[in-house]
Order: sequence, then structure tokens, then C-alpha cells
Amino acid sequence: MNVNGRHYRTIWIEPSTEVLTIVDQAVLPHRFQTRELFSVEDVARAIRDMHVRGAGLIGATAAYGMWVAARAAARADPGGFRAQMRAAADTLRATRPTASNLAWALERMERALNGQSGPGAVAAARREAEAIADEDAEFCRRIGRHGLGLIEALARDRGGRPVHILTHCNAGWLAFVDYGSALAPVYAAHDAGIAVHVWVDETRPRNQGAALTAWELGRHGVPHDLVADNAGGHLMQHGMVDMVITGADRVTRRGDAANKIGTYLKALAARDNQVPFYVALPSSTLDFSLRDGVAEIPIEERDPAEVRMVDGETGDGRLERVRICPDSTPARNWAFDVTPGRLITGLITERGLCPATEEGVLSLYPEARV
Amino acid sequence: MNVNGRHYRTIWIEPSTEVLTIVDQAVLPHRFQTRELFSVEDVARAIRDMHVRGAGLIGATAAYGMWVAARAAARADPGGFRAQMRAAADTLRATRPTASNLAWALERMERALNGQSGPGAVAAARREAEAIADEDAEFCRRIGRHGLGLIEALARDRGGRPVHILTHCNAGWLAFVDYGSALAPVYAAHDAGIAVHVWVDETRPRNQGAALTAWELGRHGVPHDLVADNAGGHLMQHGMVDMVITGADRVTRRGDAANKIGTYLKALAARDNQVPFYVALPSSTLDFSLRDGVAEIPIEERDPAEVRMVDGETGDGRLERVRICPDSTPARNWAFDVTPGRLITGLITERGLCPATEEGVLSLYPEARV
Repeated sequence: MNVNGRHYRTIWIEPSTEVLTIVDQAVLPHRFQTRELFSVEDVARAIRDMHVRGAGLIGATAAYGMWVAARAAARADPGGFRAQMRAAADTLRATRPTASNLAWALERMERALNGQSGPGAVAAARREAEAIADEDAEFCRRIGRHGLGLIEALARDRGGRPVHILTHCNAGWLAFVDYGSALAPVYAAHDAGIAVHVWVDETRPRNQGAALTAWELGRHGVPHDLVADNAGGHLMQHGMVDMVITGADRVTRRGDAANKIGTYLKALAARDNQVPFYVALPSSTLDFSLRDGVAEIPIEERDPAEVRMVDGETGDGRLERVRICPDSTPARNWAFDVTPGRLITGLITERGLCPATEEGVLSLYPEARV
Repeated sequence: MNVNGRHYRTIWIEPSTEVLTIVDQAVLPHRFQTRELFSVEDVARAIRDMHVRGAGLIGATAAYGMWVAARAAARADPGGFRAQMRAAADTLRATRPTASNLAWALERMERALNGQSGPGAVAAARREAEAIADEDAEFCRRIGRHGLGLIEALARDRGGRPVHILTHCNAGWLAFVDYGSALAPVYAAHDAGIAVHVWVDETRPRNQGAALTAWELGRHGVPHDLVADNAGGHLMQHGMVDMVITGADRVTRRGDAANKIGTYLKALAARDNQVPFYVALPSSTLDFSLRDGVAEIPIEERDPAEVRMVDGETGDGRLERVRICPDSTPARNWAFDVTPGRLITGLITERGLCPATEEGVLSLYPEARV
């Protein structure tokens, strides 16, 4: 994505300094700032406090975090090196419990290190982290290509009138290393000259839709309108949504999808109004070890302050945090819900489309048949 | 309701000054302030800008507004008086298009005036407005009594463990003249010693749940937790909701209910998880002239700024408005959606419970059979 005339990924090793650097998503859309991460603790804090977020980007950040850890441990003896790397992986794994990509990336890093230590291990960690990041971007590009066909078909049905797509949270460029999952088909369609319009759910409590998706779409020139999360049912009842596409944080082998809290409500409204509902994800989000998503996927509960407080910019350009409830009001804050596969029209992955069923998933990923 | 040791209604004629006075809901929960309304324009602005809101209170405020208008027109000749009253009614009717109670109260005021003018008409307007306010409070008290039985039954089933009730928006004391509709059964149960706990949807974009329902429940000592509007589906999937009760702004003779945007999404989740879903309303909210709520109830679209901006209190006690999206982001802001009767377990009215069907509604209101 281009910002102020420069191409950015969401995470990279800055060539001039060799420092791991991210776009700081905690201050978007009001400020565009990068942030340097010097230690594993910096990386863990960046994930936990959501300076980076989104399925793919969490995985890539954890991978780069293992490179940061390897560099710090490079002078230790082999036993010390391995102990430090195990501790780093534990620290990173504990930051966000729902995202599948996190555990997936850490396992891949451990396989790549394969018991090595010292400078060779540092080089191997770097190569593997870069490979994970490159693959994430490439898989998102392919998701865009596969999803494009769905939007093209809707555009034909509508005789050139804009295709209205509703999305929840941010599964765009900012949620991955590049391109995004749910927004990749939207960008592909827009770039192909198809008229698309996006309904952007604001995505309480963290407002990733209002802050990140609206910012991305605005930068890319894609027509869109911000709506409250509550609005989706009304829009679908009145024929104002042609398609829903969301991302996912973990998808089971049966096709149940954990995604930002509130996704399940939109899926119910889509079914009630015969609106197609798609979930877009790279295979790093698949958890083949789970079947029943509602029963089995762990759902992260976060700080109630995220519900009680809202961050934003005042009319005169100051960043402020305001409380929207009485000071004494308690709150609860689950970050995700699970949409059962029965409500999902199809999954869009880097290998193509499939039904959100075990047969469907395994038809694209036969290597997971055991 | 008692606030700082004094019993308040939400609207009243202050005895010492004879001025129409309201609790200003635009600054709650951060400030408790009353506001005096001197002219019909003041009254219309108070409704439009939501210094008062909620089905019953909108109706009562419009009724009192007609008294304010009559007083201002008292010295006019009969023709002038009637012209001024018609203009006042038109001004008030145009403030909020969805709320049924508004048109209902204005029609009732017009019938009470019955072509009179002068001081006699002023006295008649005052009597009728007070009667509407008293009836609103009394009907809500009865709704509480009828709804109490439902909560008692759930409490028995749960063997004394707390009954978890989810509500959306504010249909409490602040939405009516007193007691409330959806919250009246909750208050009745709490006062009867039944353990209840309320999940309070924050209710974007105006945050009436976070600002008003949480404040009311806190004042009354009812255990509750604030949650994002997105959370209800997750709560219901995991058995954490025993019952949903919401208010309504207009209910058709078939039992379709317009209520705060997002209510329909909760009704879908309730059905998908076999959670009973009730709508509480006084008969002033019934619109016997309509059948298909989705097709026929006009849905108010409000200022996009309500979606783009959030009001709250800073850590050091200042009231601030912050923007949560890029400055250039457009937004849309529908205030209500319609929950079809097929998703509603029952209606709770001042006359008792009934199914949300035409037969059900007419069994309680046989006078509407034509």
C-alpha cells in the first residue's frame, strides 16, 4: 500500500538500521507513525496492546519477534540459546489466545531453527520470518484474485450498478503484511474497474472499522460509508447489501470461523435475508485440530476499559480518551465470536473457494486428511 | 426514580415557576442537569436533539409541548389560536418520524382541545398532558407487574441463581415518564428480591445503553455489566443470557416492532440459541394502521456526525467530543430497525402478555378489530 508516496508493508526490517519496524496501528487514523521494536518484550507488547493486530500480521510479527530473540541470544551457548528461544516463544504465544496464525508462525519458526544456535540460527530465523511475511502477502494477493470472481458475477447480475459489500472489523492491508484477506477481493475489483461500495462496520469496542478500514479504503479511493455495527440487519432487510466478506482469526476443519465479536450477528442477518456471506483467510488461519468452533476455540477476554473508553481526535486535533458510561459501571469485553460454518456461504483461501464444511476444507487442503 | 434524595419524573411542570422542565439526557451520565423549555421551538429542539428521548417520553413531551403552545396562543382570537396550535402540532410531529407515541399524543391533545381556544383551552391542554404523563407512568408500572411473572418463572427454573437479562438501548425510567417499559419488569423483580443481572448493550451510535441504562441500573442497585453491541451473539451461544427484553418505538398490529437499530440482530441471535425474546410497550406504541413493519414503518435517518463522533468525559472530568474515523470518512446513520413478529416470543403491555401476531395483539386490544 502507498502512504504519502512510499510503498509500505505493515512490518519490515528497516534496511538502514536493521531494526524491526511496524506501522503503529494504535494511533491510526489520526496519526501515521512507525514504531521500532528492539526486544521480544517490545514485540509482545506491540501484539498485546494492538499496535499490530489482524490474523496474518500477528503471525508475521511473532515470526519476526523470534528473529529479534535470536539476535539477542546469538552469543549464548547452544543450551542457553535454546532456552532463551523457548522463553521467547512462550512470551509471544501468550499475547493473544484466539489467533491461529500466532501458534502457526511460532511452530514454523521452531522448525526452521531446528535446534541450531548462534549466528547461523539468527540468519535462519531472519530467512524464515521474511518467508512467512512474503507468503502472507502472496497468499492475500491470491485471495483477492479468487474473490474477484464472486464480485464480478454480482456486478454482472446488477448490470453495472455498484456492488454493495459489507465488512466487519479490519481484514485489509493493515491486518496482514500486505493486501489483506476480506478487502483483497474488494481492492482487486476496484482496480479492475468494477463499481464497488463498502459498508464499513465501526467494530466496537476497538473501532478497527472506523479507524483502520475506513482509512485504508479512503487511501485507495474505494467508495464506502461508515455505519454502526447495529446497522447491518437493517441494511440487509432493505436490499442494500449484495455480499458480506469478513476475515477470520481461526477457522476449524469444519469451517466454523472465529472472527471479531459481532461477526456471528451479521452472518445471522445475512442468512435471514439471503445475502451471501463469505469468510476470507489464508491457510495459516486454519486450525485442522479443531472441529466445533463454538465449543473449542478459546475466546480472548480483554480489558473492560476498551468498552468503557473511546479514543479519538478532538475538533482541534488533540488525541483524547473519553469514558462513555458512569465511572462506576463494570464492563466485559470478549474480543471474538464464532460463526458456525452453516451460516457461511463459502471460504475464500489462497487455493480458491470452498464450502465451509469439513469436506469443503479438505478438498482444498487434502494434506490435512488424517 | 430517586436522584440525590429527590423523586424525579423525566418531565414535569415545575410548581414554583410553572415552567416545563426535563431531565437533560444529553449530558447524562456525566452531569445530572434539568432544562427548562419555554417555547414550542424549545420543546421541538429538545426532542430532535435528544435532550429527551424514548417512546413514552417523546409522546409526553409532545403533549406538554401543546400546552406550552396553548399558553403562548391564549390571547389570540379563536381562528388564530387554532392556526397556532396546528402549526405547533406540525412542528412537533416532524421531530422524530419513527416513534408512534408522538403522533398518538398529538392526536389525543387535538381531541382534548376539541376546537376550544383561550384560557379554557390552556387548562384543557394542561389537564390532558398531565393525564398522558400519569397514564404513561401507570402503564409502565403495569408492564413491570406483567413482566415480573416471566422473570419469576426463570428464577424458579434456575434454582435461585441470577437470571441474566440482555437489553438494548434504554427503555427504562428515562425513556418514559417513570418506571420504563423493558426495565420495569427488571426493577419489579429486583425489588421483589429476585436475583437479576443485566447485560447492557452500549447501543451505538448514541450510547444510550452505556450512558443511560447503566446509570439507571447503577442508581437502583441492579447488578449489570456493559457490553459492546457486538457481544450479544457470543453471550447467547454460551448460555449466558436467559431472556432478552427490549422496548419499542412503534409496533404494528401484526406485532412487528421498530426499536433502536441493532435490536433485530439480537432477536436473530435469540432465535438461533432458543433464548426468549420479549418486547415491552404501552399501547401508545401500537400502530394499528400498519401490518408489515419492515415495509411500512418509516425509519429515521439521523446526522452522520452521531456515528463519526463520540461524546464522553475525560479522565480529568472534561466533557469532550472525539472523532473515531478519518476526517474525510462519510457515514450513514439509521436510528431504528424492525424486528419481525416471527422473532418475538411475546409482547408485554399494560394489559398483559400476548403473542406478537395480529391475533395476539387483537386479543388484548379488541377495540382495534375493524
